[in-house]
Amino acid sequence: MTSYETAKLAYDAKTKPRGSLGRLEELGCRLAGIRGFVPRTLDAVIVVAAADHGVAREGVSAYPQEVTAQMVANFAAGGAAVNVLARQAGARLVVVDAGIAVPFEHESVRSVRLGAGTANLAEGPAMTAEQVRRGLEAGAALADELRDVDIVALGDMGIGNTTSASALTAALLGVDAARVCGRGTGLDDAGVARKVETVRRALDVNQGNDPLTALGGFEIVFLAGLARGCAANGTAVLLDGFITSVAALAAGRLDPAVLDVLIASHRSPEPGHALVLEALGLEPLLDLELRLGEGSGAALALPLLRASVAILEEMATFDDAGVTDSGR
Amino acid sequence: MTSYETAKLAYDAKTKPRGSLGRLEELGCRLAGIRGFVPRTLDAVIVVAAADHGVAREGVSAYPQEVTAQMVANFAAGGAAVNVLARQAGARLVVVDAGIAVPFEHESVRSVRLGAGTANLAEGPAMTAEQVRRGLEAGAALADELRDVDIVALGDMGIGNTTSASALTAALLGVDAARVCGRGTGLDDAGVARKVETVRRALDVNQGNDPLTALGGFEIVFLAGLARGCAANGTAVLLDGFITSVAALAAGRLDPAVLDVLIASHRSPEPGHALVLEALGLEPLLDLELRLGEGSGAALALPLLRASVAILEEMATFDDAGVTDSGR
Repeated sequence: MTSYETAKLAYDAKTKPRGSLGRLEELGCRLAGIRGFVPRTLDAVIVVAAADHGVAREGVSAYPQEVTAQMVANFAAGGAAVNVLARQAGARLVVVDAGIAVPFEHESVRSVRLGAGTANLAEGPAMTAEQVRRGLEAGAALADELRDVDIVALGDMGIGNTTSASALTAALLGVDAARVCGRGTGLDDAGVARKVETVRRALDVNQGNDPLTALGGFEIVFLAGLARGCAANGTAVLLDGFITSVAALAAGRLDPAVLDVLIASHRSPEPGHALVLEALGLEPLLDLELRLGEGSGAALALPLLRASVAILEEMATFDDAGVTDSGR
Repeated sequence: MTSYETAKLAYDAKTKPRGSLGRLEELGCRLAGIRGFVPRTLDAVIVVAAADHGVAREGVSAYPQEVTAQMVANFAAGGAAVNVLARQAGARLVVVDAGIAVPFEHESVRSVRLGAGTANLAEGPAMTAEQVRRGLEAGAALADELRDVDIVALGDMGIGNTTSASALTAALLGVDAARVCGRGTGLDDAGVARKVETVRRALDVNQGNDPLTALGGFEIVFLAGLARGCAANGTAVLLDGFITSVAALAAGRLDPAVLDVLIASHRSPEPGHALVLEALGLEPLLDLELRLGEGSGAALALPLLRASVAILEEMATFDDAGVTDSGR
């Protein structure tokens, strides 16, 4: 019997109508299937990877590029949304500098810098094949360090990174730029139009290039490597929003085994996100109009994962409690 | 400035694009508005009211009536789903016997018995006006005891109670029985057809009677009184599924102020639930195909409420963290 099936039988023995906890039961079964055993508790780590994007100079973000480094400092100081939400969810936070423009040195920031921000993907490849290789390796190395953890949640920070994610989505799924460009952290209509035009130029100038190399971001490549490493280790990967889902999509193209360990935390209002989730075959747990990134949506979904396991671990069975079972 | 507006300004000063935490921010603002101040932490209690229903003898449940009392014993022993989920959510549980068929005496069960189960609503009024009055008073009395609590979550247990809730919904919203009858805890198609027919008979035989008296359940009346008392005290009321939402709908007919303090935790697959939520003007936080009751969905949503407040309490502002604000 698989661990998925063992968990399913365990849910069915609990004092509740079969399947009455709906998607929570499905979630617990999937966690068991991914881990290869029925977890008693869940050890969770949120990895927030940050990087800068050359495409930011196209005016595709509501915020200036300096905010990436400022937010990494905020993560290190414990004051950002994901710090608060990780504490609430009982998850450890790992902050990664995958290549912000100006290095931010801090004992709590893991440096795997692939460069000082990517090149402008609207003018040519965002990075080199060597940078992709290094990024994937660095992600896999962190996955190996976290091999005893049950869940690795992915988070991102990078001014301009929804443009990179939109371009990657358009390239990987073969859809038009207009279908994958949204407001990001707060663009107005003119900003969105500029973003669509920028993605079109990027797809045009990078025709024939490898999508991840040409259109990716350093944090996206790192997160793709992390997801791939987690899949190899049987660690569940909890996605946040658009950026992390695109990283998982790219990782799945490198290694389809990645698709087996993914859990979608939420659906963001970014139009590309729904397309990526559909391509990944994932139905998210939450739909709360979150558009912050950082792993914030993943942190908000973590209590549902914990609850699914607590039900298995703590709840009485029909036999334990002497409750009449309808058998349904 | 109202407490809602104070909370809104506080969210806008935090280091994140304005509104980027979506419905979580709206939730925190509503909590502040209901409480009359911006809460720093949330003290939450889940009240599970149990009762038996004469209509159970019409064969409208997948489970025999004895299961109501067995589940109350399970609540008292700490082994039911809501016990596990309340512990996970850091909420205290209050179990109420509002009128199960055979009393279950236990130090942790609050007895406010309105009778030994209701009369069969398919044959006449489920209860007397005096029982309704006593039930509403008992609910309000508990609300007063809990006046320092920030959130009271409602939960229910009662074999046959989706039939009572369906009949009440049909009567209060003026919709056909077929639109409000679902599978409950696991009816097959023949069972659902029997339930529709039972609700039709109930509406027919009780024409001209007060809906709550004629079609209610003791737990529903008690929960309606609890919701009304909470509204009077400025306590937020977190709904669970169909039964508790109908109780709130009935309470809102008695006192429209109830509508101002309601928060919907989840949308269940019961067809009547969506209609009741729409009538209450509520958009639920979760949609996970939960159909257990007991307050389980409310318990699962509590971490989102806690997160909304933690963001206000713990997150850095743009000024604190020296992060550039786009002003958007």
